[in-house]
Amino acid sequence: MPKEGKNITENVNTPPGTATHVGDKKMENAKLTYTKYNKEKIDRKNIKDIDEFINDQETDKVKWLNITGLQNTELIENLCQALDIHPLVIEDIVNTGQAAKYEDYEQYLFLNTKSIVFNKEDELDTEQISFLLFKDQLISFQESESSIFSPLNKRLAEGTYIRKNKADDLLYGLLDTVVDHYFIVMEKIGDEIDLVEDELLSDPNKDVLHKIYTLKRELIFIQNTLWPMRNVLNTLSRNESDLIDERTNRYFQDVYDHAIQMIDLTETYRDISSGMLDTYLSSISNKTNDVMKILTIYSTIFIPLSFLAGVYGMNFKYFPELNWKYSYPVFWLVSIFITIMMIRFFKKKDWL
Amino acid sequence: MPKEGKNITENVNTPPGTATHVGDKKMENAKLTYTKYNKEKIDRKNIKDIDEFINDQETDKVKWLNITGLQNTELIENLCQALDIHPLVIEDIVNTGQAAKYEDYEQYLFLNTKSIVFNKEDELDTEQISFLLFKDQLISFQESESSIFSPLNKRLAEGTYIRKNKADDLLYGLLDTVVDHYFIVMEKIGDEIDLVEDELLSDPNKDVLHKIYTLKRELIFIQNTLWPMRNVLNTLSRNESDLIDERTNRYFQDVYDHAIQMIDLTETYRDISSGMLDTYLSSISNKTNDVMKILTIYSTIFIPLSFLAGVYGMNFKYFPELNWKYSYPVFWLVSIFITIMMIRFFKKKDWL
Amino acid sequence: MPKEGKNITENVNTPPGTATHVGDKKMENAKLTYTKYNKEKIDRKNIKDIDEFINDQETDKVKWLNITGLQNTELIENLCQALDIHPLVIEDIVNTGQAAKYEDYEQYLFLNTKSIVFNKEDELDTEQISFLLFKDQLISFQESESSIFSPLNKRLAEGTYIRKNKADDLLYGLLDTVVDHYFIVMEKIGDEIDLVEDELLSDPNKDVLHKIYTLKRELIFIQNTLWPMRNVLNTLSRNESDLIDERTNRYFQDVYDHAIQMIDLTETYRDISSGMLDTYLSSISNKTNDVMKILTIYSTIFIPLSFLAGVYGMNFKYFPELNWKYSYPVFWLVSIFITIMMIRFFKKKDWL
Amino acid sequence: MPKEGKNITENVNTPPGTATHVGDKKMENAKLTYTKYNKEKIDRKNIKDIDEFINDQETDKVKWLNITGLQNTELIENLCQALDIHPLVIEDIVNTGQAAKYEDYEQYLFLNTKSIVFNKEDELDTEQISFLLFKDQLISFQESESSIFSPLNKRLAEGTYIRKNKADDLLYGLLDTVVDHYFIVMEKIGDEIDLVEDELLSDPNKDVLHKIYTLKRELIFIQNTLWPMRNVLNTLSRNESDLIDERTNRYFQDVYDHAIQMIDLTETYRDISSGMLDTYLSSISNKTNDVMKILTIYSTIFIPLSFLAGVYGMNFKYFPELNWKYSYPVFWLVSIFITIMMIRFFKKKDWL
Amino acid sequence: MPKEGKNITENVNTPPGTATHVGDKKMENAKLTYTKYNKEKIDRKNIKDIDEFINDQETDKVKWLNITGLQNTELIENLCQALDIHPLVIEDIVNTGQAAKYEDYEQYLFLNTKSIVFNKEDELDTEQISFLLFKDQLISFQESESSIFSPLNKRLAEGTYIRKNKADDLLYGLLDTVVDHYFIVMEKIGDEIDLVEDELLSDPNKDVLHKIYTLKRELIFIQNTLWPMRNVLNTLSRNESDLIDERTNRYFQDVYDHAIQMIDLTETYRDISSGMLDTYLSSISNKTNDVMKILTIYSTIFIPLSFLAGVYGMNFKYFPELNWKYSYPVFWLVSIFITIMMIRFFKKKDWL
Ligand SMILES: [Mg+2]
Ligand SMILES: [Mg+2]
Ligand SMILES: [Mg+2]
Ligand SMILES: [Mg+2]
Ligand SMILES: [Mg+2]
Ligand SMILES: [Mg+2]
Ligand SMILES: [Mg+2]
Ligand SMILES: [Mg+2]
Ligand SMILES: [Mg+2]
Ligand SMILES: [Mg+2]
Ligand SMILES: [Mg+2]
Ligand SMILES: [Mg+2]
Ligand SMILES: [Mg+2]
Ligand SMILES: [Mg+2]
Ligand SMILES: [Mg+2]
Ligand SMILES: [Mg+2]
Ligand SMILES: [Mg+2]
Ligand SMILES: [Mg+2]
Ligand SMILES: [Mg+2]
Ligand SMILES: [Mg+2]
Ligand SMILES: [Mg+2]
Ligand SMILES: [Mg+2]
Ligand SMILES: [Mg+2]
Ligand SMILES: [Mg+2]
Ligand SMILES: [Mg+2]
Ligand SMILES: [Mg+2]
Ligand SMILES: [Mg+2]
Ligand SMILES: [Mg+2]
Ligand SMILES: [Mg+2]
Ligand SMILES: [Mg+2]
Ligand SMILES: [Mg+2]
Repeated sequence: MPKEGKNITENVNTPPGTATHVGDKKMENAKLTYTKYNKEKIDRKNIKDIDEFINDQETDKVKWLNITGLQNTELIENLCQALDIHPLVIEDIVNTGQAAKYEDYEQYLFLNTKSIVFNKEDELDTEQISFLLFKDQLISFQESESSIFSPLNKRLAEGTYIRKNKADDLLYGLLDTVVDHYFIVMEKIGDEIDLVEDELLSDPNKDVLHKIYTLKRELIFIQNTLWPMRNVLNTLSRNESDLIDERTNRYFQDVYDHAIQMIDLTETYRDISSGMLDTYLSSISNKTNDVMKILTIYSTIFIPLSFLAGVYGMNFKYFPELNWKYSYPVFWLVSIFITIMMIRFFKKKDWL
Repeated sequence: MPKEGKNITENVNTPPGTATHVGDKKMENAKLTYTKYNKEKIDRKNIKDIDEFINDQETDKVKWLNITGLQNTELIENLCQALDIHPLVIEDIVNTGQAAKYEDYEQYLFLNTKSIVFNKEDELDTEQISFLLFKDQLISFQESESSIFSPLNKRLAEGTYIRKNKADDLLYGLLDTVVDHYFIVMEKIGDEIDLVEDELLSDPNKDVLHKIYTLKRELIFIQNTLWPMRNVLNTLSRNESDLIDERTNRYFQDVYDHAIQMIDLTETYRDISSGMLDTYLSSISNKTNDVMKILTIYSTIFIPLSFLAGVYGMNFKYFPELNWKYSYPVFWLVSIFITIMMIRFFKKKDWL
Repeated sequence: MPKEGKNITENVNTPPGTATHVGDKKMENAKLTYTKYNKEKIDRKNIKDIDEFINDQETDKVKWLNITGLQNTELIENLCQALDIHPLVIEDIVNTGQAAKYEDYEQYLFLNTKSIVFNKEDELDTEQISFLLFKDQLISFQESESSIFSPLNKRLAEGTYIRKNKADDLLYGLLDTVVDHYFIVMEKIGDEIDLVEDELLSDPNKDVLHKIYTLKRELIFIQNTLWPMRNVLNTLSRNESDLIDERTNRYFQDVYDHAIQMIDLTETYRDISSGMLDTYLSSISNKTNDVMKILTIYSTIFIPLSFLAGVYGMNFKYFPELNWKYSYPVFWLVSIFITIMMIRFFKKKDWL
Repeated sequence: MPKEGKNITENVNTPPGTATHVGDKKMENAKLTYTKYNKEKIDRKNIKDIDEFINDQETDKVKWLNITGLQNTELIENLCQALDIHPLVIEDIVNTGQAAKYEDYEQYLFLNTKSIVFNKEDELDTEQISFLLFKDQLISFQESESSIFSPLNKRLAEGTYIRKNKADDLLYGLLDTVVDHYFIVMEKIGDEIDLVEDELLSDPNKDVLHKIYTLKRELIFIQNTLWPMRNVLNTLSRNESDLIDERTNRYFQDVYDHAIQMIDLTETYRDISSGMLDTYLSSISNKTNDVMKILTIYSTIFIPLSFLAGVYGMNFKYFPELNWKYSYPVFWLVSIFITIMMIRFFKKKDWL
Repeated sequence: MPKEGKNITENVNTPPGTATHVGDKKMENAKLTYTKYNKEKIDRKNIKDIDEFINDQETDKVKWLNITGLQNTELIENLCQALDIHPLVIEDIVNTGQAAKYEDYEQYLFLNTKSIVFNKEDELDTEQISFLLFKDQLISFQESESSIFSPLNKRLAEGTYIRKNKADDLLYGLLDTVVDHYFIVMEKIGDEIDLVEDELLSDPNKDVLHKIYTLKRELIFIQNTLWPMRNVLNTLSRNESDLIDERTNRYFQDVYDHAIQMIDLTETYRDISSGMLDTYLSSISNKTNDVMKILTIYSTIFIPLSFLAGVYGMNFKYFPELNWKYSYPVFWLVSIFITIMMIRFFKKKDWL
């Protein structure tokens, strides 16, 4: 089952701007990766001290700081306060329980997004990925180490097209990666639907019910995650902030298209799951009906015959049939006749 | 079961502005707590006479009057009339049956909000909390004594950040506390859903049905309470009243975010509950089907055997088989053969 | 069952403005009550001739004409034509089949509203109450005599606050009375829901089904009546007509709030009713399952035993067991053993 | 069953403006009725040649040409081309498969409306009625001969009020007639619902299921027909075309009100039908449960008794009870005791 | 079952503008058909080299390049780059997994549309058809060879009306053809619904369930395909691009009308399918009930009779009835009496 509404009370009744980490404890220490690049050169290293990033005076490069691990709230608070980030934003960065959001603080944009993954227990879970976009800086915050940004890091290293552009284009690249991840989850769910559908139409057993139920839960979870993502991407593609180049808007529109495609697919899958449940319910009713028919056929054929046998098992002293010579073969003829009539009746009723 | 639509006729056919208390009788006497503070100093006391608040001429402090208990309508009327509050507002303060609302009367803002609690009978119930916000005064009205504002009182006493700000920030603090309370209720319901879900998938008995039904009722109740709250908070975060500082809007936006998160969670939980009910219904059908199968298997095996035994229990005088030497063992062989054929048949039908 | 879509063809294929009474025939003769008042004085009498109202030249008083009974269409037509009312309005006044509506004809406002009542057969029915508001005149049209306006008449007579104001305030008072009436119906339905809910959870019999069905029908009926009412009241509270004082808008807003409260309650009750029906369906399935279990337990225990008894009732000549000394007590031991095994099996299956 | 989506491929892959008749073949030849009138005079005749209408130079009269029968597409094309009608409009006039629509071509308005009828096979079907409104001309196109316009023709002949007005008022009169026709259909369906409801609550048999299904189909059909009609009428009532007098808008608003009333009634009837289906399903479950109970009561009483009789029918040589003197009456006493215990058990279970 | 969400991961984690073909592999090589025409002349040929199209300097003709087969992405990339098409558009042309869309790039319009077909396995599938519209050029991209554009090619060849117009009118012609194709699919589904409905009401077997399920899946698929098409066509009919003549808008409006008609029909068919499923479920319950009745009637008649026969088959020594002279005929009389009473009981219960 997907994880919904977990740890929601951790940040309750605290003053505004309290940076309490809300969510699963995934990484105790934060990992800071600092990447600087321009068309000519790319430089990538792990740093220990945030000052290395804050005090970097170089101006002709895109500077990307990726922070993995949200439990070290002190480090994140220090970084954000040094950059004059609104306390409520700091609170949101470390609170993994809320929906995706977009906030424009003029000096910077704050984006909270959700990646979707199957965790170790094969449950659907979200990974929160937040972004702070400045003129030529981008800071990204991830809950835990994952390979989600590897393809983009590879593209950066290979010096393709992407290094010519600004921080807003890097943000696009990262968001594209996040949304592309949904395709992978959706394909897995699509495959599961195909399997369950086959099982449903060939052999509808109890496992099918459990599987349909799990699918429905997962689809509700994905839909609830995607809708706020959709709004964030829509806002970005219509963005008028100075921090985002007009030319980049079309690219955000493209990511938005993909989010829409996922939402449509989720709705379709939900419709299909509901259809499967209805069909499952009908199948059980059908099966019960079949079982009933067999029982009824057997009973209605043998009950009168047994009664007849019972009659001639009675011990009355004055009982003419008992002494007739052909009683026994006549009994069998009568039994066969009754059986044939019954079978005809059931054939007419279309039960056989 | 949650309490819905209770005491709704108490205020019927009265003239406009009639301050009739509508709701459960919780506190006969009102309790007035008067808190005054600025950055330097905080002063907190229980008062008996509203004049102590009305006639207070001090101007450099935030003045917060908290009234607990709505049955003493006379006191509330006197207070409000002294402050020139619209009669319809007075009526709304003591009428706990209506939804949350926001009204701007220029000189003051009127806010009616709902906190949600499990009452003594473990039923969900709302507690109405109303606010009148003036330039540097805030009056809050609660239905009954609760610890809901304790964390905030503690923060005020400790002289944190909050004491630097105005009455609008105090209002934010109180509203944040009210909304945070929903998280606690929602977590409890989330836990209940997990329990019922486990029970449903392992052992779906009649209690599960009752529990699902109660969950659905509670979620309808929460959703109906939250939607108007959401609208109130949305209006506040877009507020243009002079009584609210522009800077505070972002904070109301944060509370609004939390309300949205609760609404989303409520909808998710409703979807899950509906799924559980469908699954429950399918389980019962499944179980009936299983019971039917056992009955049918037994009957279809033994009915023909019993008939056969009945046949050889008949007392016909001319009955050749009765006198054959191996009739009895042959009878058993035939019985065993029929049983095996039947079992094969059911194996083929996948019932065994 | 509520009365829906009755007599809808009575006004078909007539020219526009044909004043055909559409609805139940409730009162053959109209009753005209004429009330005049100002702060100082109130005058109330039944009149026979509409000229008494039309030709009244007094200007410093609010003039309210209440007409009860819509079957005397001639009288209503004469009155309206004398006041230069649009023919389509006249048609609407006597046609009780349509939804509530608001129309601004500049010289006057036309309001068509619906009160809701349980009629003599305890069926939900609407009573149409129309209003024509002029500068200092108000004409109200009721389908039949009811006590709905008594509280207001009493307040007018007692010379309270209300007499200081104009005709628009009188309209507010009457509308408030009409909407307040819904509370009474809703409380009755809320009580019925509580009763049915108790019955459902303790002893779900066939009556419950009928009651749930009736509740659902009634709630559909109320919702369909309330939605247009809500629109009428919303329009009034945002009104910019010269006939309504700005100050009165807040009062209409208050009535609108109450209508919203009723609509929310109706939706909640509909959700609850649907939940009750699902629960009822599940209960029957549960009961069928229980019945099946008892039958199956009995059958599976006794069928093999009966077979055994049948076997030893066979009349074979060569039948060794019949002559053994301990056959009979062994038969009982075997029977008891089978019974115990079966009971264990059912215990394991959790049926006992 | 209503006729939906019939003959929809007849006009596929043809060039735009191809006047292919799409729909049931109802009338091979068209019938042209030409009516001219003003306040003083009315003239009405069947014509053969469209030139009689086109070349009519008289200017002080309203000219109404009604064409019945859409299969003679050549005639319709000639007429429309002579009046310079857009080819796509001509296509729409003879294509009866599309929804109602409104199109403003400045020189003329094109209106496509749908009347609803029970056809000869008692299936719901639509009749398309199109209008071309010019300054003082109106052309109407009907699929087949019907009496739908008779009341209006009568009113025209009688020289009432209507003859004083222009072509737009004639259009209003015809549309009012078309919409009034829905009331007749809806009343028939309302009566059917009452009948089915009675049957459902007294004796829910299989016919009821079929009837509910048919009702639901018919209501879907009506709703789908009415929604576009509603939009057409709404556009008309807000019309700003020079072809329609401002004064007439209120009259179109009145027709629009009636359409809304029908739509509301249709939604109500759909809700009721759904409720009836749920109730029907519950009734069957109830009945199955009742049948099961009877079977179970019988079986559980007689199965142990039959076993006992079987026991004493065994032929063991050493069988003490067989020789006791009071065995037989004791057997009956035991049987009666068992029966009483069983009946008590079922009474306790509330099955009897 | 229709094909939904297939191959959705093929384009994941690639840089923006990567022209990866996403979809079924249908044609390895692309086929280029180049058509040039004006009022006087039409010229149509297959070309191998895109330069033949790009370098064509003729200006007084409409130039239409139709490319069939999307797997040769290199060719498509070269063509698009030569015409300065945005990389994201190129990506969309070869990605068949997304919904229909409309994008205005000022120099050209990009349209992505979906045709719907039953593929070789009789599964519903979409065929993507994209368009690039320039001032007097149109490029169309199809997934595979189909006869969809044949009627239009024929009309062009025959030199009708269409050759007088510009590229925007050609686009209209092609879109009209695409939308007309939906009618054919919908008619097939309509026929299937009629068949299933007949089967459902006459003989509801398991196949019906499967068929209803497939219908529902197909209708979900069609609806999801049509909604974005509807938006594309709506945008076109309101278009203000210089590339589309104002006069053509009405024609796009006509195609839009047809799309709306299809959407309405799809919704109607979905409603009908849901109704059929409910009815199917009710039928099974009905049938189970009938089977139960027969079993119960048989059992309740014969069980007491068999018991009686068992009683007189007991071997008690002291058993008075056994020796009475008329015991046996009395036994039959009693049996007949019991049978008659039972039948009466069932007649009263309305089971016979
Ligand atoms: Mg907090
Ligand atoms: Mg998480
Ligand atoms: Mg992407
Ligand atoms: Mg699939
Ligand atoms: Mg949503
Ligand atoms: Mg794209
Ligand atoms: Mg009141
Ligand atoms: Mg309360
Ligand atoms: Mg909070
Ligand atoms: Mg959970
Ligand atoms: Mg709501
Ligand atoms: Mg926040
Ligand atoms: Mg009329
Ligand atoms: Mg009425
Ligand atoms: Mg009121
Ligand atoms: Mg209650
Ligand atoms: Mg509605
Ligand atoms: Mg109020
Ligand atoms: Mg259902
Ligand atoms: Mg065509
Ligand atoms: Mg037709
Ligand atoms: Mg009418
Ligand atoms: Mg009725
Ligand atoms: Mg609709
Ligand atoms: Mg009217
Ligand atoms: Mg990509
Ligand atoms: Mg495809
Ligand atoms: Mg077309
Ligand atoms: Mg059909
Ligand atoms: Mg949609
Ligand atoms: Mg058309």
